[in-house]
Amino acid sequence: MPEAAHNKPFRLTILGSSAATPTSLRHTTAQVLMHYNRLFLLDCAEGTQMQLRRLKLPMMRIAHIFISHLHGDHYLGLPGLLFSMHLLGRTQDLHVYAPPGLSAIIDMQFSISGMVPQYRTFFHEIREGRQRVYQDDFLEVETLAMDHRIPCYGFLFREKPLLRNIRKESIGKYRIPVGQMQDIKRGLDFVTRDGRRIPNQEITLPPPAPRTYAFCSDTAYTEQFLDQVKGVDLLYHEATFLQDMAEVAREKKHATTAEAATLARKAGACRLMLGHYSARYRDTGMFLKEAREIFPDTILAEEGMQVDVRP
Amino acid sequence: MPEAAHNKPFRLTILGSSAATPTSLRHTTAQVLMHYNRLFLLDCAEGTQMQLRRLKLPMMRIAHIFISHLHGDHYLGLPGLLFSMHLLGRTQDLHVYAPPGLSAIIDMQFSISGMVPQYRTFFHEIREGRQRVYQDDFLEVETLAMDHRIPCYGFLFREKPLLRNIRKESIGKYRIPVGQMQDIKRGLDFVTRDGRRIPNQEITLPPPAPRTYAFCSDTAYTEQFLDQVKGVDLLYHEATFLQDMAEVAREKKHATTAEAATLARKAGACRLMLGHYSARYRDTGMFLKEAREIFPDTILAEEGMQVDVRP
Repeated sequence: MPEAAHNKPFRLTILGSSAATPTSLRHTTAQVLMHYNRLFLLDCAEGTQMQLRRLKLPMMRIAHIFISHLHGDHYLGLPGLLFSMHLLGRTQDLHVYAPPGLSAIIDMQFSISGMVPQYRTFFHEIREGRQRVYQDDFLEVETLAMDHRIPCYGFLFREKPLLRNIRKESIGKYRIPVGQMQDIKRGLDFVTRDGRRIPNQEITLPPPAPRTYAFCSDTAYTEQFLDQVKGVDLLYHEATFLQDMAEVAREKKHATTAEAATLARKAGACRLMLGHYSARYRDTGMFLKEAREIFPDTILAEEGMQVDVRP
Repeated sequence: MPEAAHNKPFRLTILGSSAATPTSLRHTTAQVLMHYNRLFLLDCAEGTQMQLRRLKLPMMRIAHIFISHLHGDHYLGLPGLLFSMHLLGRTQDLHVYAPPGLSAIIDMQFSISGMVPQYRTFFHEIREGRQRVYQDDFLEVETLAMDHRIPCYGFLFREKPLLRNIRKESIGKYRIPVGQMQDIKRGLDFVTRDGRRIPNQEITLPPPAPRTYAFCSDTAYTEQFLDQVKGVDLLYHEATFLQDMAEVAREKKHATTAEAATLARKAGACRLMLGHYSARYRDTGMFLKEAREIFPDTILAEEGMQVDVRP
């Protein structure tokens, strides 16, 4: 369990908010999730490498890329990003989590270019069913089952539980040796030199709850992952259409403002972020209005926007 | 032969001028060549569809796309463009001229997306050797053999010879009937009612010479296509490096400022346009300076720039 670190950044940056096709102002879907000093890329639409440069997010610090599904507006920037990583001298391993089929495309493109990357790319194929696709000392990522026209997955990023904090006054009062602090932070009681057992709860404070971010890309309204996103700090949920197009949304396996907001409410999310707006909408004001009627803590994804997972 | 039409537009728009990787300011290679009211796309780097939108060039009017080679910085925008054409309802046939291998990539991407385009794409594979890949009533396009690390072709666009113009005063003087005008414009002599033969040169003016544009993308210095570009109106020639990096250029099969300018001079080109600048250069002022020392009528490609093939 890592040290309590709720003051360390866990921050989302929006690279693209448009559905299906880019517009003159909006890019298609890509997001960067920064946890501490590491960058995770969520989807990688055409133009992602340019957006990373514009927003001064160093592409070489991305080691894990999560692709929701293989519609072009969610992955067509990947080949260019991988080529650029090679051309700029990357040697560090790269991991790509995606539905089956992506590695064949990338392999073919590298092969035909005559370029042999100096780094290794590991493709981790996402299969059906809730799956933990990634974990390290600080974070874990599990899939969320979207309901879309082709296999499509959301991703839930959850911090590992943090260590408890030792109350400052207890350290002096009970003369707690440095060597035992880690055990106490992990929840063990402290036994004084004269054999007295001090309950852990008396000398520590609970850590902040782990922060969570759910990326729900391209889905019709579904509650099939609702239990996984209960109480999530920040829920990104696609809202391709306003509510008057609910029927079109259902047919195309996309969601509306009201549907995204309903899911956020049922999940008890702290905040909802909408995105993936159909290119037919120039003004997104109505997206906010419609969603806030159901779920007031709604914000809209916009290119270049940065938000903390927990403000 | 079409009517004299040298006042009709034949205009180049630059969508991207960067080599290999985009920068925060430059896109990788793509150009639109407008002839009359038709748009031809030359290379299609990542972000081309966004550049077309920004520059208000309607993508649906593109029916012919010419791809020089299969390095990512010259074609990675094609899948996104083709997807968008489908999503925006295209039904018109599309023709893509490219080295072998591109259709397999595109087919795989469409197949995995579950989308079936409502238009047909014809892939015309470019093979070695000077080849006329396209012609219509107004234009013809032939390949130029580049010298690069993988098969790579430039494209020479040449207007078909125009009809001669009948001198206005001759029409009255010799009472030329409308029905014979086309023959005279084609070069035939005119025979008057009383049997007198008037030589064509006496009653017509020569048309302007056909306009020509040569797109020389990604090549080491070579004169292997010099005869084809003799007297070209506008010669676009890559200049990835300044002259002090001539050795690196040779090794990577790219050209320098001085090399591009030398070729323009030997070709007797009317104008030279440089582009495909390595991302290491922020300022392109030296490109212009170095090239103009050898070939004064040099200009620099810049994103969004429009130039007439013949001013």
